[in-house]
Amino acid sequence: MKAETQSFNLADELVQRAPYEAAALLEEQDDEAAVQALDTVNPLIAQQILHELDDRRRAELLAAAPVEMARQWMRNREYPEDSVGWLMEPPVAVFRPHMTVGETVEALRMLTKKSFITYGYVTDENNKLVGVLVMRDLMLSESGRKLQDVMYTNLFTLVPEMELTDAMTAVLNRHVPVYPVCNRQGHLLGLVRGQDLFEARAIELSAQPGNMVGVNEEERLGTPVRRSLWMRHPWLQVNLLTAFAAGAVVGLFQDTLDRVVILAAFLPILAGQSGNTGCQALAVCLRGLTLGDLKQGDQKRLFVKEAVLGFWNGVLVGIVAALGMFGYAMFSGRGDALMLALVVWVAMVVSCVVSGVAGALIPLVLRRFGADPATASSIFLTTATDVISMGTFLGLATLLVDK
Amino acid sequence: MKAETQSFNLADELVQRAPYEAAALLEEQDDEAAVQALDTVNPLIAQQILHELDDRRRAELLAAAPVEMARQWMRNREYPEDSVGWLMEPPVAVFRPHMTVGETVEALRMLTKKSFITYGYVTDENNKLVGVLVMRDLMLSESGRKLQDVMYTNLFTLVPEMELTDAMTAVLNRHVPVYPVCNRQGHLLGLVRGQDLFEARAIELSAQPGNMVGVNEEERLGTPVRRSLWMRHPWLQVNLLTAFAAGAVVGLFQDTLDRVVILAAFLPILAGQSGNTGCQALAVCLRGLTLGDLKQGDQKRLFVKEAVLGFWNGVLVGIVAALGMFGYAMFSGRGDALMLALVVWVAMVVSCVVSGVAGALIPLVLRRFGADPATASSIFLTTATDVISMGTFLGLATLLVDK
Repeated sequence: MKAETQSFNLADELVQRAPYEAAALLEEQDDEAAVQALDTVNPLIAQQILHELDDRRRAELLAAAPVEMARQWMRNREYPEDSVGWLMEPPVAVFRPHMTVGETVEALRMLTKKSFITYGYVTDENNKLVGVLVMRDLMLSESGRKLQDVMYTNLFTLVPEMELTDAMTAVLNRHVPVYPVCNRQGHLLGLVRGQDLFEARAIELSAQPGNMVGVNEEERLGTPVRRSLWMRHPWLQVNLLTAFAAGAVVGLFQDTLDRVVILAAFLPILAGQSGNTGCQALAVCLRGLTLGDLKQGDQKRLFVKEAVLGFWNGVLVGIVAALGMFGYAMFSGRGDALMLALVVWVAMVVSCVVSGVAGALIPLVLRRFGADPATASSIFLTTATDVISMGTFLGLATLLVDK
Repeated sequence: MKAETQSFNLADELVQRAPYEAAALLEEQDDEAAVQALDTVNPLIAQQILHELDDRRRAELLAAAPVEMARQWMRNREYPEDSVGWLMEPPVAVFRPHMTVGETVEALRMLTKKSFITYGYVTDENNKLVGVLVMRDLMLSESGRKLQDVMYTNLFTLVPEMELTDAMTAVLNRHVPVYPVCNRQGHLLGLVRGQDLFEARAIELSAQPGNMVGVNEEERLGTPVRRSLWMRHPWLQVNLLTAFAAGAVVGLFQDTLDRVVILAAFLPILAGQSGNTGCQALAVCLRGLTLGDLKQGDQKRLFVKEAVLGFWNGVLVGIVAALGMFGYAMFSGRGDALMLALVVWVAMVVSCVVSGVAGALIPLVLRRFGADPATASSIFLTTATDVISMGTFLGLATLLVDK
């Protein structure tokens, strides 16, 4: 009991750390406690931690783990990160089709002493999955019946290379606790628990707002300052480079600003509005990708929708902003207050339309280039919206407002 | 088979729509198909859809559903939205402690014909949960034994009022497919599947980047333009009001800008940098809240960490920005290039420190006021970072740069 409590706490500690920190923690633990904790946490987390361990320590833990578990850990490492393959557990209860229900129940009596078994699996002599056994059915069947007459043969399986996003979409409406994972030839490679799948996905999803602004998925609240700095800083330098683009646009119109200095106060207003409008479109598009709502061919409709939304949002917000400019210009004693208000309004409409489309476009472009659609998306977007909104505003002012 | 395929498709359609649209879709379906689809989707989604149905249609569907399901739907509505209570399914397989294993297996033989049963539950005469039955144990026990000798009595239960976030944290390391839900008195109220819990949570989490910029959780890719406009626009008006604050700060320093117009080009650079620095802190803090990492008393440490990070990020990014200003000012033929560069550097350090702390602070303040910590957090944050960064920059310039 003591050991169990201790290992449960260790598992909690592992879950709250970045994988490399969890790996460091396991260095100091005895093998048995470490293996037990790795068996307790989500298999994806276990795999990430194993990945971070140095070769010597990993070999020690693999040697200390039960054979099937060690073999499964080795096998899972062959698959890409964040794929279904990383989540697999060993399919302990595997039987042959000609076995009887009675024989199977006796075998399960032994197996359940050391493993948590939900379903049995029936494979042929080539390890090809041919059926799934439900305990309830075994319990309710005569003991002389053969498994091939009792098993479910209408199989739903996952493929190990599948990304977690796709797997989540695939199982969204199947209320099954465990899914068998088979390769293209139908060979049984492991099991994935629905809960582990969604748990892994939830942990991944909780990192999305951070990904958008250049926070690494590894960073957690407990990550040391030095490591956080190391991971976050490069994206801030990227952000600075892109911000120079926005600064350059303003610099380009320095003469106009020099003549009509009240324009400056509206720069952050236009940038802020189009930035937020774009971020709304970005978030909705990302969510569509996450939940699998975006079908092939839907993209054009999405762009049109965001353009229309940007237009109306720009029109309405632009009216309020234009009124603000009109009052401010009048107060400053300028005779061209009406023209200035018009410039604000038009610039707001144009930049909200472009920002909306840009917000929907950026995650799709990132995905096209093989990147995660959320990665630094907000950094790229705000640069685009800054350049567009302030460029349009100052450009129009240069054309339409004299002195 | 035909009907089943059709209802499966209907379930898929429901999942991809906002609840009010899904409710509209159910208006046109026959009762049986509608009930079957509602039984297929995640119970949280079913509950949201039932909530949106008009009273007449909801009464029709409740009448068409099996009694236990209808009763459970009614019961779940008593609990707050996004609580465990909304996710409950009926605990169909309920037995008494003095029943024998044999009697129970016979009862299960009937029950399993119409329901998907994972565990049995044992309650006393007051419906208080006293034990959980695992099929495996029933299968492996002699049929004359009493349930009270076979059942698990070391119970883990959820409370219906619990928020999904807290429930997810509570079950994170328990690999159990179904959790019983009991009130404070221990009465069994329903069951929650681990998968449903994490699925509901994943759908909720995927809405977080949108929540941060004022997109409603209801909005999906298929939401009509008019509805999207209606839901997104109010937050854009809020954003505009807060942007006026940033504009006012710039307006305050109009004289300085008038004299030193090259400052204008650095306004978007400072705003962009401190905005992104703050968003990084915001995202990490939100994630900590989501995954339950933030313990009581950790807050101060979090603020200190973000302040330190902001300082070093500001120092390093500020050097590059200051070099940019130095070159630009030299190129513009100004004699005070060094002082201008210093102003940029100091403003960058100050605003990155304050932005980092603000990013960590805002979700905690929102939560303190009973709001979702993500709601519009990005809107509030960027206003703060705009005001701080541009205010510091222009304030310092006013003090230190003449002409």
